[in-house]
Amino acid sequence: ENANQLQEQKDSLAQKLQEKDLRNTELEAQLSDLEQRLENSQLEGESFRKSLRSLLDLLDGKIFELTELRDALAKLIESGSS
Amino acid sequence: ENANQLQEQKDSLAQKLQEKDLRNTELEAQLSDLEQRLENSQLEGESFRKSLRSLLDLLDGKIFELTELRDALAKLIESGSS
Amino acid sequence: ENANQLQEQKDSLAQKLQEKDLRNTELEAQLSDLEQRLENSQLEGESFRKSLRSLLDLLDGKIFELTELRDALAKLIESGSS
Amino acid sequence: ENANQLQEQKDSLAQKLQEKDLRNTELEAQLSDLEQRLENSQLEGESFRKSLRSLLDLLDGKIFELTELRDALAKLIESGSS
Repeated sequence: ENANQLQEQKDSLAQKLQEKDLRNTELEAQLSDLEQRLENSQLEGESFRKSLRSLLDLLDGKIFELTELRDALAKLIESGSS
Repeated sequence: ENANQLQEQKDSLAQKLQEKDLRNTELEAQLSDLEQRLENSQLEGESFRKSLRSLLDLLDGKIFELTELRDALAKLIESGSS
Repeated sequence: ENANQLQEQKDSLAQKLQEKDLRNTELEAQLSDLEQRLENSQLEGESFRKSLRSLLDLLDGKIFELTELRDALAKLIESGSS
Repeated sequence: ENANQLQEQKDSLAQKLQEKDLRNTELEAQLSDLEQRLENSQLEGESFRKSLRSLLDLLDGKIFELTELRDALAKLIESGSS
């Protein structure tokens, strides 16, 4: 009688353990997926900032060239004033 | 004798189940943390793009004003040519 | 006889003087006209330069605003890098 | 007596004619000088406008390049939004 009860309890525990294992495997898969997405998101962010820095450098160049043009205009305006 | 063996197996299963539960709780906490970080990362990304769009609008304005200035200069140059 | 000759010479001189006077008046009118045109030309030139200086000031303003925009972009790019 | 008077008048006229001639020569020199200055002024004005047109072309180029940069920024901002 006692042995039968123990057998039932043991079977129940074995089944619960199996279910937990399954759930565990699922969670690990989700975790791995999220880690991958977060890493991709960070790589994309870095690539995005790198592209923005290139545009910033181009903008610096344009501002410098506009300043040169401004200086040439100033020089031209004053050249014939005397 | 058989009952003792079953009891041992049952105890072992119960301990494994407890360990799995612990691991499970850890995994769920990690998952929740990662989800939060991914969501924050996306919110930051949106906020970043929104700020960039504001700067783009400002740049549009500056280009428009430079074009107006260019037109005024063109008009001035041609005004006294006749 | 001598008096007649002198009278003729005198008349000839008087006529030449009259012609010179006419020519003189013409030259003075031309001179006055040219002086007026040169003065107008100089006034126009000054007015032109003044307008150019206003445009130069506007250009200075635009370059300054572009530089502010550039700084805001640089700040934004670096803000989320850490 | 009459002849003496005529001679005097004739001499006076001759002197006046000489003075007018001198004044005339002066006026023609001034006129020639002014014409030269006006022509130089116009040549300088044309040269000035030509230089201004070159600067205007440069400004056109800079505005075009800023617009290209603006388009690249807009494209970059929208690229990762989806």
